[in-house]
Amino acid sequence: MLTYSLENTNGLPIYKYLYECIKHDILLGTLQAGEKLPSKRRFAEHLKISIITVENAYAQLIAEGYLYTVEKSGYFVSHIEKMPPAEKKHAPLPEKTTEISYFLDFKTNHISEENFPHATLSRLMRNALSEKDGLLRPLAYNGVKELRDAIAGYLRDFREIHVASEQIVIGAGTEFLYNLIIQLLGRDKTYAVENPGFQKIAKIYELNNIRFRYVDIDRAGLSVQKLREEETEVIHISPTHHYPTGIVMPIQRRQELLRWASEREDRYIIEDDYDSEFRFSGHPIPPMLNIDTHGKVIYMNTFSKSIAPAVRISYMILPPALLEKYRATMSFYSCTVSGFDQYMLAKFIGEGYFERHLNRMKTLYRTKRDTVIEAIEKSKFANKVTILEENAGLHFLMRLDTKTPDQEIVRRAAEVGIRLSFLSEYTHEPTPNDAHVLVINYSGIDTDKLDEGIRRLEEIL
Amino acid sequence: MLTYSLENTNGLPIYKYLYECIKHDILLGTLQAGEKLPSKRRFAEHLKISIITVENAYAQLIAEGYLYTVEKSGYFVSHIEKMPPAEKKHAPLPEKTTEISYFLDFKTNHISEENFPHATLSRLMRNALSEKDGLLRPLAYNGVKELRDAIAGYLRDFREIHVASEQIVIGAGTEFLYNLIIQLLGRDKTYAVENPGFQKIAKIYELNNIRFRYVDIDRAGLSVQKLREEETEVIHISPTHHYPTGIVMPIQRRQELLRWASEREDRYIIEDDYDSEFRFSGHPIPPMLNIDTHGKVIYMNTFSKSIAPAVRISYMILPPALLEKYRATMSFYSCTVSGFDQYMLAKFIGEGYFERHLNRMKTLYRTKRDTVIEAIEKSKFANKVTILEENAGLHFLMRLDTKTPDQEIVRRAAEVGIRLSFLSEYTHEPTPNDAHVLVINYSGIDTDKLDEGIRRLEEIL
Repeated sequence: MLTYSLENTNGLPIYKYLYECIKHDILLGTLQAGEKLPSKRRFAEHLKISIITVENAYAQLIAEGYLYTVEKSGYFVSHIEKMPPAEKKHAPLPEKTTEISYFLDFKTNHISEENFPHATLSRLMRNALSEKDGLLRPLAYNGVKELRDAIAGYLRDFREIHVASEQIVIGAGTEFLYNLIIQLLGRDKTYAVENPGFQKIAKIYELNNIRFRYVDIDRAGLSVQKLREEETEVIHISPTHHYPTGIVMPIQRRQELLRWASEREDRYIIEDDYDSEFRFSGHPIPPMLNIDTHGKVIYMNTFSKSIAPAVRISYMILPPALLEKYRATMSFYSCTVSGFDQYMLAKFIGEGYFERHLNRMKTLYRTKRDTVIEAIEKSKFANKVTILEENAGLHFLMRLDTKTPDQEIVRRAAEVGIRLSFLSEYTHEPTPNDAHVLVINYSGIDTDKLDEGIRRLEEIL
Repeated sequence: MLTYSLENTNGLPIYKYLYECIKHDILLGTLQAGEKLPSKRRFAEHLKISIITVENAYAQLIAEGYLYTVEKSGYFVSHIEKMPPAEKKHAPLPEKTTEISYFLDFKTNHISEENFPHATLSRLMRNALSEKDGLLRPLAYNGVKELRDAIAGYLRDFREIHVASEQIVIGAGTEFLYNLIIQLLGRDKTYAVENPGFQKIAKIYELNNIRFRYVDIDRAGLSVQKLREEETEVIHISPTHHYPTGIVMPIQRRQELLRWASEREDRYIIEDDYDSEFRFSGHPIPPMLNIDTHGKVIYMNTFSKSIAPAVRISYMILPPALLEKYRATMSFYSCTVSGFDQYMLAKFIGEGYFERHLNRMKTLYRTKRDTVIEAIEKSKFANKVTILEENAGLHFLMRLDTKTPDQEIVRRAAEVGIRLSFLSEYTHEPTPNDAHVLVINYSGIDTDKLDEGIRRLEEIL
């Protein structure tokens, strides 16, 4: 009779070990298709184990299809392909090359960590997690009502944006929301992105096999003249503070674009208002949404800039007709942000912490920007640079008076531990006109390292 | 000279009120294009306010493009389209009809809330939020290493799944991961879904304009014979516990499908292991991933079932070749799960809470299932039903001996407050053979209401 030594089971329960032994023999072909196995009782006696142990092993093998039963006859080996047992080890795959650690990084959009409201968020999260009611239920497509209400209230009180909280759809980051918008507006459209602009948008369209084009910007933002050169249905713009140029789109251009959109039913404008909170003088620029009388603007914003990049909560505001369509065709999607995160953020906004946090961060960023600009203006290369900035946002431009190619400067800076990026990196098919303009992302840098960083830049510039 | 009464500014700062007044007049055409505005000094004197107040108002109007300056000449009204000022109110949109509240709901996949580890999660979240280092930095495409390591460790220790943590990609829910998989595998492929099956998958393919087909299942799961009838590249299956039939795919069928996949380079199998944790006897069924020697299986799982639907954390395991492709083309996407959620879950799994929670839930669900089945077997309609179940998962099937159409039974049950769903709802083009089989989702029901619920069903069955 079939015999296995059960003295050393490698810490497995005996039924499990017996199951493994039999499975192993079936896969290797030692036990052949159609072969009859001992009855539970006889096998148990033979192996000096309990009948229930054999029964459990057989049950698992039957569940997985290795054995089958014939009533009143017994247990038989199934007809299966012989194969080596499952491998226990996979060759470890190297992690994607981790990013080089720079002494000072002017490229990555980090945030200042100084003022992160750890304690408040911890407390609000604890509240959210203990508010059992509703916390565990499946989420609606558009997110938790409390959060949508809090966002609508914040927009009304601090941004003069008046929308119904039902128009808001919460999602795990704007990149994810773009994927939804493509599904909402359709793949048969031509999409346009700003050139230069935020490169990820184009990548997302590419991965979605969407027809898209780059439309050049001029001093007022996306050029309507260029836009009209080819059939286009959907444009993606950041009129409040264009990335990376920082251009604020004036009211005329906004009106022109809205007029363009209102000429045809399937034209839409995606307004990305990603860092509109950080305007250092006056009040925030009102979004195009506010002058959209034809339901043409999909407004988006995110908490990645205003709280932290690791907070994956964004939202879009849909005009009523698109909302209807969304509900009809896409509301089967669950919201992608965990319920407790949404309750936490609802309280963070609703109880006024968000606005206070923004004010603190605005002060911090303004000071940081001033410190960076002052250090540049005091540096030995001060006479070789022109700073272009709009008193807003978490980056500014700096034109270099140089003949050295951008790539070469990036390389030399990296050698001394400084990460730089040029406008040309954000431009599709850059021309010589796009050269020599640095994009300085200052929000995440450690100002204690600034003097040393500038000294190193002095060496190479 | 231009005059505004600044006595009542509606609580606005004076500069803001003045800005609003001028903007209003420009938009209405009262101030015309090219018109010159008073100098800051004269306007300030006239309105009896400070020069800086006028300056701030002008600065904001310039920033938004309503005014322009001519050096040494002054401030002029821009040429813009006349339009009514932004509306302050939007007609409120009705919320999507909220779901009817049922006395007892056998359709929705709720979970039992009894054992939700609020306190543990709160504590771990507090730890995560105070672990400042790295918390705020942008997330890598595949998620936080700590969480991927914890999942790989859990899979190794409790599921005998041996993968490198680098193969794991974290995402905000499996629906989102499907959208990524489509982008990874390509839109030029034909995808297949199980029929009957989880209907959302087909909807996602539809919204993505992806060619897909329904492939019938037989008693062993997806039929390879049917699959081979048409060119197909990617199949989506749930071999461990098919939804809604509960079928466990036997080893033979798994081998056949893997053989089908290995015949062509562009064929892949998406293995959805969504409720594999809840097997009530023996140990979990090993996934197809474990016998995949050709890198053909993309394994997915979620914490929505094992922790709560409102926890939007899922993951997929990519075979090495697809991982390479993902890194090359899709790693610009930020991970969609917030950093602190990932750190929290990493600790929840890594410190053994997850396994303990699963064991508690398994016991709870088994008891619940037994209670429901017992109540049915004691009911007046016991002789009219046959229960079909696999000792696993959070639902079972119940065949009704009736001639009444499924829809009619659903309607009658709803009238007495009971929500039912039939297998035919999960079937594309159902045939008479698919009729009269109820899908009983018992995991979220309140067993205190069971007796009354059964009594009501007795009335209508």
